[in-house]
Amino acid sequence: MVKEGDQSVTLDLLKQKMAEFARERDWDKSHSPRNLLLALVGEVGELSEIFQWKGEVPKGLPDWNEEERVHLGEELSDVLLYLVRLSDICGIDLGRAALRKVQLNALKYPVSLSKSASSKNQEWRNFTRWSIYGNAFDMITILFGEKCRYRFI
Amino acid sequence: MVKEGDQSVTLDLLKQKMAEFARERDWDKSHSPRNLLLALVGEVGELSEIFQWKGEVPKGLPDWNEEERVHLGEELSDVLLYLVRLSDICGIDLGRAALRKVQLNALKYPVSLSKSASSKNQEWRNFTRWSIYGNAFDMITILFGEKCRYRFI
Amino acid sequence: MVKEGDQSVTLDLLKQKMAEFARERDWDKSHSPRNLLLALVGEVGELSEIFQWKGEVPKGLPDWNEEERVHLGEELSDVLLYLVRLSDICGIDLGRAALRKVQLNALKYPVSLSKSASSKNQEWRNFTRWSIYGNAFDMITILFGEKCRYRFI
Amino acid sequence: MVKEGDQSVTLDLLKQKMAEFARERDWDKSHSPRNLLLALVGEVGELSEIFQWKGEVPKGLPDWNEEERVHLGEELSDVLLYLVRLSDICGIDLGRAALRKVQLNALKYPVSLSKSASSKNQEWRNFTRWSIYGNAFDMITILFGEKCRYRFI
Repeated sequence: MVKEGDQSVTLDLLKQKMAEFARERDWDKSHSPRNLLLALVGEVGELSEIFQWKGEVPKGLPDWNEEERVHLGEELSDVLLYLVRLSDICGIDLGRAALRKVQLNALKYPVSLSKSASSKNQEWRNFTRWSIYGNAFDMITILFGEKCRYRFI
Repeated sequence: MVKEGDQSVTLDLLKQKMAEFARERDWDKSHSPRNLLLALVGEVGELSEIFQWKGEVPKGLPDWNEEERVHLGEELSDVLLYLVRLSDICGIDLGRAALRKVQLNALKYPVSLSKSASSKNQEWRNFTRWSIYGNAFDMITILFGEKCRYRFI
Repeated sequence: MVKEGDQSVTLDLLKQKMAEFARERDWDKSHSPRNLLLALVGEVGELSEIFQWKGEVPKGLPDWNEEERVHLGEELSDVLLYLVRLSDICGIDLGRAALRKVQLNALKYPVSLSKSASSKNQEWRNFTRWSIYGNAFDMITILFGEKCRYRFI
Repeated sequence: MVKEGDQSVTLDLLKQKMAEFARERDWDKSHSPRNLLLALVGEVGELSEIFQWKGEVPKGLPDWNEEERVHLGEELSDVLLYLVRLSDICGIDLGRAALRKVQLNALKYPVSLSKSASSKNQEWRNFTRWSIYGNAFDMITILFGEKCRYRFI
């Protein structure tokens, strides 16, 4: 039944599906922002349970069987679906916000600095230093307002 | 700079952007499944902090100013971006998994039952009852394997 | 200033301190169950951030400096303090509940079974198997009520 | 069987019980810091599930039946027990750290300011303002080291 994959699945499609799902079941009234947020936290808990006793897990999960992978896909999806629904109910355009956040992160962690720091095995220190600058950056926003930050970007 | 919104933003686009972002900064080695999972939990914490002292919040966040909305969009995005990255690193096609999960949920919570239960103010009991069936359903999967479950769907 | 340690710190002492702290600052009205729960989730996020980029961490944290240890102690404490406060606000005797839960766990995971399973490197399978029994146990409670479960214990 | 309550339950008692529990079952090897942290996140998820569809919940949970209260006590306990175990495995004296954190919080949120701010319905702004000072305070620690901070307190 499922033919589409990452390539074609937009956040908008998932938003529409979740909205339709809730409307058909009269669940709109229980889908308040904080209800959905706690449901999201619940799903993050289930996602964590999958990894909790495994120790460090290599990329690509080479030792996991098909059943474990399917289960993982379900828990990742539960988190995503509640996140999409929460954003919709809050009136946030999640796709637009995510693209903007990638741009903000690119400003916060410039390529050159990160790379040299990383090659010197100082990634953690770099993180710390940049997070101080990052806080300064946030402080500018707090002091001068979001519009200033927008213009900056 | 940001022109696209939900309509056109695919999970694949975000996956590509995150992969490129990590590669450019030599961060691939620190993007292990459990590192990313804990980073995701950290972002869920920051998302929760936005809502923590607000009491119940109505849909659409009518009383929130622009700065608060932008901040919320950033935290929702952080959760999304780590979720997309975690899925990629685990080799899970998140878009495909999410569409499949919507279908599974439709089987688990049929429209007719949910609606009548809801109209009788018994949504919670309905949830409980269905979660028992849901567990039975999971037990079938555990006993007879994932392929059986696939065929069933 | 701080002289006491684990030996003498009771959950009741922390409950009293948190209640007094909130009362002195007129914070009682914002300490609703779900506000405190979201604050707890926020603190769990901060705790996770400490561990997020570290890969596997050995017991006793041999490579952590004093500053990192103090920071960790603060985040662990924040989780504890909100947990104690949430329990108090919900009218749950956390100490009593915790001792009872240890007893329930002892029934759920008997020593002999766990040990032999563990020695055969099958801890995970054992977990799975016992969680099915665990669910059956929960189902008994759902069907026959909590009192039955109490008597059983 | 359970006679003790909050009054007499120390963090040390719970630490001893958890250590003994793990030792008897040969679980020490799976109780690494990050395994326990993810298990804690899993339990926080289960705690959130209890509250997720309930909307705002009044203090004391007047409408909850005995079964729901017992269930809540179990999930609160699961979070506590993993928190105590995680602290022990990390070599952190949780009781001592918690008492110190209460003192730090008292410095961060002085009674007089909080009360007047609160009475003017500006609790949120006060939080924000103090969190800036709080960051400044953390910055001092980062710059001059933990000992300086200790002396200050």
